[in-house]
Amino acid sequence: MADREPVELKLREQVVLKLRELILGGELAAGQRVAEIPISERLGVSRTPVRQALTILAQEGLLSAAGKRGYVVHAFSAKDILDAIEVRGILEGAAARLTAEAGPSPDLMQALEACLAEGEIIATQEHYGLDDDVRWVGVNGRFHKLIVEASANAALISALALNDKRPFASAQAVLGGDAPSRPIARRHHEVVLRAQAEHKRIVEALRLRQGTRLQSLMQEHARLAQANVALFRPA
Amino acid sequence: MADREPVELKLREQVVLKLRELILGGELAAGQRVAEIPISERLGVSRTPVRQALTILAQEGLLSAAGKRGYVVHAFSAKDILDAIEVRGILEGAAARLTAEAGPSPDLMQALEACLAEGEIIATQEHYGLDDDVRWVGVNGRFHKLIVEASANAALISALALNDKRPFASAQAVLGGDAPSRPIARRHHEVVLRAQAEHKRIVEALRLRQGTRLQSLMQEHARLAQANVALFRPA
Repeated sequence: MADREPVELKLREQVVLKLRELILGGELAAGQRVAEIPISERLGVSRTPVRQALTILAQEGLLSAAGKRGYVVHAFSAKDILDAIEVRGILEGAAARLTAEAGPSPDLMQALEACLAEGEIIATQEHYGLDDDVRWVGVNGRFHKLIVEASANAALISALALNDKRPFASAQAVLGGDAPSRPIARRHHEVVLRAQAEHKRIVEALRLRQGTRLQSLMQEHARLAQANVALFRPA
Repeated sequence: MADREPVELKLREQVVLKLRELILGGELAAGQRVAEIPISERLGVSRTPVRQALTILAQEGLLSAAGKRGYVVHAFSAKDILDAIEVRGILEGAAARLTAEAGPSPDLMQALEACLAEGEIIATQEHYGLDDDVRWVGVNGRFHKLIVEASANAALISALALNDKRPFASAQAVLGGDAPSRPIARRHHEVVLRAQAEHKRIVEALRLRQGTRLQSLMQEHARLAQANVALFRPA
């Protein structure tokens, strides 16, 4: 997981991120053909990282193979997005339960309490704004990552990493979009207040090693993200 | 899922399968360097499918990136194998629960009953042998696939497909190895008898839409495979 990757792999990862953004943002629309040469020209990189990136995105399901070295952008429905969020809940719930059953370490509890304290400051801002969104995405990401990695199950961590690449599936996608309008910022603040309250219960259940309760809480917590889907992608 | 793939992708898939076999069989041992040119010479294929296959195997976690275009074979411990089986149980259990909650179709129930009938004939063979192992792997694979695909959750199906590629993680890996000795054949027969009994309960719980019971049964059913790990890979 924490391999120091050579420069070539970093470039490939950047191309993966850029292509994913173009697809999710709709600039490369569903059904559109995607080929090695035009993409390498568009991004100003050599063909090798582009070729590898296309292979990876096809494995993820964002692209479908279509002819020699060609791909088309895969169509994603609202159901696909809700399903991926459901799977995140299932996996995060299982990870939390495994950690509770094994007994959480004092270090883990301390790190989670630090996330709660930081989250409390953000959630109780009087004038909640874009900066708070950005800070929340950071602390929320750390909170979820701590719980998943504490499971110490490589297969589970890897299944979640794959699922996180699906549109709107990751905990980081709970908010998103840049420069939200005032009504959307208000909606974000409501989501953050609910999420922070749920985080507190999750930490309590983990401290008490209540595995079954924790799994249910964590699984339901993921559904907060389902409410956001309508914001970006009206049915 | 059912894309008709061009010849080039089929070749890539063959290289992936062959390399996976060499790694899991220990011919490419943990820590060993794996590079594009020697592999393409060894398998008698061009470098393009090998390059793509190496990228895919690195994404799966069987290889780790190490320097320019190079990889090393990742080490797998007994814990890695048990963890992947645990994750299969979590995902198959969730798939079965979702199917029970949505209500199983008559076609699904009929197909599962057909698997039960065929499994019963295999499991109750008087002289259980290698042929029965092969037949069981077939009917068992169909049984598990039917349940997973009935969830109609693409993210879940894809997470399971990734997990199935880990050593001994898939339902197909419940048996394995060619030409087992007589004591191992006897052990296989015991596993098949238990698995068949569990399949019957699973179908019953699904028919009654008992989602929670079904999830527990399915999750515990995966643990049958954990008992097999010791057979191949003593701790």
